[in-house]
Amino acid sequence: MLTPISDPSDARLADYRDLRDVQLREHLEIENGLFLAEGEKVVRRAVEAGFTPRSFLMAEKWIDGLAEVFGEAPVYVVDESVSEELTGFHVHRGALAAFERKPLPSLDEVLDGARSVLVLEDVVDHTNVGAVFRSAAAMDFDAILLAPRCADPLYRRAIKVGMGAVFSMRWTRLPDWHSALPDLSARGFNTVALTLAPDAVPIEEAVAGVDRLALVLGSEGRGLSARWEQAADQRAIIPMAAGIDSLNVAAASAVACYVAARRTGA
Amino acid sequence: MLTPISDPSDARLADYRDLRDVQLREHLEIENGLFLAEGEKVVRRAVEAGFTPRSFLMAEKWIDGLAEVFGEAPVYVVDESVSEELTGFHVHRGALAAFERKPLPSLDEVLDGARSVLVLEDVVDHTNVGAVFRSAAAMDFDAILLAPRCADPLYRRAIKVGMGAVFSMRWTRLPDWHSALPDLSARGFNTVALTLAPDAVPIEEAVAGVDRLALVLGSEGRGLSARWEQAADQRAIIPMAAGIDSLNVAAASAVACYVAARRTGA
Repeated sequence: MLTPISDPSDARLADYRDLRDVQLREHLEIENGLFLAEGEKVVRRAVEAGFTPRSFLMAEKWIDGLAEVFGEAPVYVVDESVSEELTGFHVHRGALAAFERKPLPSLDEVLDGARSVLVLEDVVDHTNVGAVFRSAAAMDFDAILLAPRCADPLYRRAIKVGMGAVFSMRWTRLPDWHSALPDLSARGFNTVALTLAPDAVPIEEAVAGVDRLALVLGSEGRGLSARWEQAADQRAIIPMAAGIDSLNVAAASAVACYVAARRTGA
Repeated sequence: MLTPISDPSDARLADYRDLRDVQLREHLEIENGLFLAEGEKVVRRAVEAGFTPRSFLMAEKWIDGLAEVFGEAPVYVVDESVSEELTGFHVHRGALAAFERKPLPSLDEVLDGARSVLVLEDVVDHTNVGAVFRSAAAMDFDAILLAPRCADPLYRRAIKVGMGAVFSMRWTRLPDWHSALPDLSARGFNTVALTLAPDAVPIEEAVAGVDRLALVLGSEGRGLSARWEQAADQRAIIPMAAGIDSLNVAAASAVACYVAARRTGA
């Protein structure tokens, strides 16, 4: 259903307003049960992954490329000047779409049959969260668990950087920060925390022979909290050259997932 | 030499003007032989690595933390409102410093004795270039070579993301794009290109037994040029889950450097 709109203040465009205001958007999107996808490829992947579109927003020239995925949802056709005034930036990848979030699955559902799980404590940057999802998906990890303060993986930028990996990866929020790691251990996972702690062993050694693995990563700045670092069954390090303090979280997660994916069986 | 300045248009502040204009800054900095470092830790690392400061710019409260590295260079002390008007953004890490670039070393100097070298074709994003430098340094790579169109690793954002790895890593620009890989082969390097080409072998296999390795990465979007892909001695892939098209360049370089650093000897 194509609907040309020329007034940026039209109420039907509310899902797309002020996209540059990250904090406002995170609250608004989660509270209203929506997320935004940007660019033809990612929009298409969201539809293919079974998410229900609330609406699409694009300039006329992008319609043909996405026509087959529109279904029953309204398609707001706007000039670029309108979308720029509405969203606050130049939508250079052409198409935007608003989708309904699905309820987060339970921990039981997410962990059912999982052998390799990534657990993120407080990764607060959406770019990093997206990169981590993409790497974990590429390395065939089964699921991702997010601590309560970890950034939203369905935020537009996280989706884009992750190339839509968040649509197919099983993931959920941990209900409780405090007991999260002991709870995973009790469920039969060996929790391995990436850290610079003095008793950390090389990651290859830490994951060797582990059947059900929960690989645990901390935040960009401070790394893991003391509680999580100590609560993990093992502490592991990616061996690094002398004088280098750490890798960034996207690089560290890629290496750790690569090593974990190749671990020898239990 | 502390010099309070209250006028953002003061000519002595020219090195710090319009920092948000990436294109303008890249040209201006390279042509004027300077680069900027931001934040106490990175500024300190630049001094410790032997770069000569042209000047420092900061609010009064940051002076004590950096006083020992000032040397003879002028320190422009400005209110935050002045630095914001001058630079175009809020300098939240406190201190900025302008340093003299050093002349780029020759290829011979950079490759002298090197066993593991990373070669970047057209990585155009400063964040990615910074992340790649940081990962290569962490994995004890000896040198990095940049194709003519690769982004500047001494651009402020690249330095910051790389945590100053660019100061200690040996690197230079390749004088010529066309013959770069055959030239490296002629110098005794085995050039291994990361690609999705049909004849690519798993990276572990490709680097096994290689003495002098030149690991070759392409741009964020299109990957390697056809010329470089075919000119490489080998094509290699990081094995990925079905349905995933690629890792981002920071993640891919971290994994590839990790694997290469652990390769069995020739």
